[in-house]
Amino acid sequence: MENKRPLILISNDDGYQAKGLNCLIDMVAHLGDIVVCAPDGPRSGLSCAFSATTPLLLTHHSSVSVCRHPVTAPSVDIWSCNGTPTDCVKMALSQIVDRKPAIVIGGINHGDNASVNSHYSGTMGVVMEGCMKYIPSVAFSLCDHDPDADFEPLRPYVERYTRYVLEHGQPKGVCLNINFPKLEAPTAESSLSGPSMPAPCAGQYNGVRVCRMAHGSWLNEVTTCHHPRGYDYYWMVGNYRNDEPEAEDTDRWALDHGYVAITPTTFDVTAYEALQSLKTLES
Amino acid sequence: MENKRPLILISNDDGYQAKGLNCLIDMVAHLGDIVVCAPDGPRSGLSCAFSATTPLLLTHHSSVSVCRHPVTAPSVDIWSCNGTPTDCVKMALSQIVDRKPAIVIGGINHGDNASVNSHYSGTMGVVMEGCMKYIPSVAFSLCDHDPDADFEPLRPYVERYTRYVLEHGQPKGVCLNINFPKLEAPTAESSLSGPSMPAPCAGQYNGVRVCRMAHGSWLNEVTTCHHPRGYDYYWMVGNYRNDEPEAEDTDRWALDHGYVAITPTTFDVTAYEALQSLKTLES
Repeated sequence: MENKRPLILISNDDGYQAKGLNCLIDMVAHLGDIVVCAPDGPRSGLSCAFSATTPLLLTHHSSVSVCRHPVTAPSVDIWSCNGTPTDCVKMALSQIVDRKPAIVIGGINHGDNASVNSHYSGTMGVVMEGCMKYIPSVAFSLCDHDPDADFEPLRPYVERYTRYVLEHGQPKGVCLNINFPKLEAPTAESSLSGPSMPAPCAGQYNGVRVCRMAHGSWLNEVTTCHHPRGYDYYWMVGNYRNDEPEAEDTDRWALDHGYVAITPTTFDVTAYEALQSLKTLES
Repeated sequence: MENKRPLILISNDDGYQAKGLNCLIDMVAHLGDIVVCAPDGPRSGLSCAFSATTPLLLTHHSSVSVCRHPVTAPSVDIWSCNGTPTDCVKMALSQIVDRKPAIVIGGINHGDNASVNSHYSGTMGVVMEGCMKYIPSVAFSLCDHDPDADFEPLRPYVERYTRYVLEHGQPKGVCLNINFPKLEAPTAESSLSGPSMPAPCAGQYNGVRVCRMAHGSWLNEVTTCHHPRGYDYYWMVGNYRNDEPEAEDTDRWALDHGYVAITPTTFDVTAYEALQSLKTLES
C-alpha cells in the first residue's frame, strides 16, 4: 500500500465521451493513477446541482472504448453516472476510489467558465465539490465550444498546473478556475504586428494572468419559439456582456487579450465587507 | 405609470404550491406588487443550474388556486415554469415583468440554506440570479423540512428585512441569505431555565446574528440500494457536520443556538487572499 502514486479524480460537465476529458486524461495520466467519474452525457449549466430525487446509476467503461488516443498509463479507471457533475464527484468519493484523491480536476471544458459563468458551470460544480471536501481542485476550460476543439496547446499548462497543485496543494477552501483563450492560426498581419498591440490568441498565448472574476451579465437570455400546436415555448440562450471591460485584473480581460487566466476561487461566499453595515439588523 | 408600488419578484425551489412560498406572499403582499415565477414542482438541490437543453414552458395561475389564505393585495401574479429556480428568475425578467423588480425574494424554503448548503440550494440560485442581475435580493429559509411547517413566527422578520432591502437596497454584488431556526413549543423547563443557557428555539428566537458562512461537510452522502432486477442504484442523502462548531460568528452557530442568521453573500467567488501567492504562476 506504500508509495502509491497520487490519485487523480477527473470529472466534467460535457460527459465522459467528450474530447476535452479524453485529452485531459492523456495530459495527466503520467502524473498519477486516474479515476474518471463523469456524466453519461452533456450536463452543461448544472452548477453545483445534485440529484435529490433521482436514483443514480454507475457504469464502468473500458478505457480503450473511451480514449481516442489509448492511454498507456498503468491505471486509468473510467466510470459514468446518470447524474450531475456534482453527483459524479460524490459518487466517486463514496463508491469508487480506494483512497482520498490528491487532486480533483474538472474539464477540460468545451467553452469558458470565466466571470459569472463560474456559477452556472458544471465543471466548476466538480471543482467546488472537491474544494468543499477539502481536496485541492482545479478546473480547466477552453474558450471553444467545438466538440472537436484543439486542446493540444493547453498540454504544457495543464501538466504544469496539475504538478503545481499536486506539489503545493491549495489553501483550505480555495480552488483554481483556469481558462484558456482559443488560439487562432497566426496570420501574416499578426506575425508582423509585433507585441505593441495584443494579437489575441494568434498562434500562441500572450502569457498567463492570475486574476479576479470579472463582473458581467447575460443579456437576451430567452428566445421564444412557437409550437405547431399553438403555444409558446422558450430556449435559454443569451449574450455575455463584460460589465468592466477596462479592468485589466479580471479573467475576462485576460482571455480577451490572449492570456491564460488563473482565478483562485473560494467556496466561502460570505460578503465580508458587508458584515459591519448590517449589524444594525441585530437590534 | 407614476407612483407604482415596488415590484417584488418571488421564486423558490420547493415549487409554486409550497406552503413556504404561499406564506411569503401573504407576508409581503402589502409592500408591493407581487410577481411569482416558481418551478412547477420540487427542485431542491439545483443550485444555480439553468436548462441548457430543455425547452421551457410558462403557465399562468389564478392566485385563488395557489394561496391557501387568499391574498387581498391588489396585485399578485402567479406563474409556474417547468425549469430550474434560476430559469424561473430569467423567465420572469425576460417574459413576465413590465418593469425591473425592486427586490427578488427566494423562499420561504422548507429547510435551511446555511453553511455550504448555500451552494446546493435552488433558493440561493434564485437569489444569486437576482444578485447577478444587480437587483437587491434576499433568501428566507426555515430549518424545518415539514411540508406543513409553521412559518408564522417568521412574519415580523420577513416583513422587516424586506422593508429594509426595499428602502436601503444592497451593495452591488451582495445579497442576503437569512435562515431561521425551528421554534419548539416552550417547555416548563426551558421557560424556567432563564437566559444563562441558550434554550434553542424554545418559544421564541434568542435574537438575530449577522454572520459568516460556516465551513461544514456532508458525510455519508450516498446510500446503496439493490434493484429487484439485480443491480445497485444509489440515493443522495447524507449528514451535515459543522467543521467549526465553536466559531460563534457563523450562521450554523447562530441557528444551533436559537438565533436568526443573516449572512451577506456575494457572487464574486474570487479568493482574493490567494491572488498574491499564485503570482509565481505568471512567469
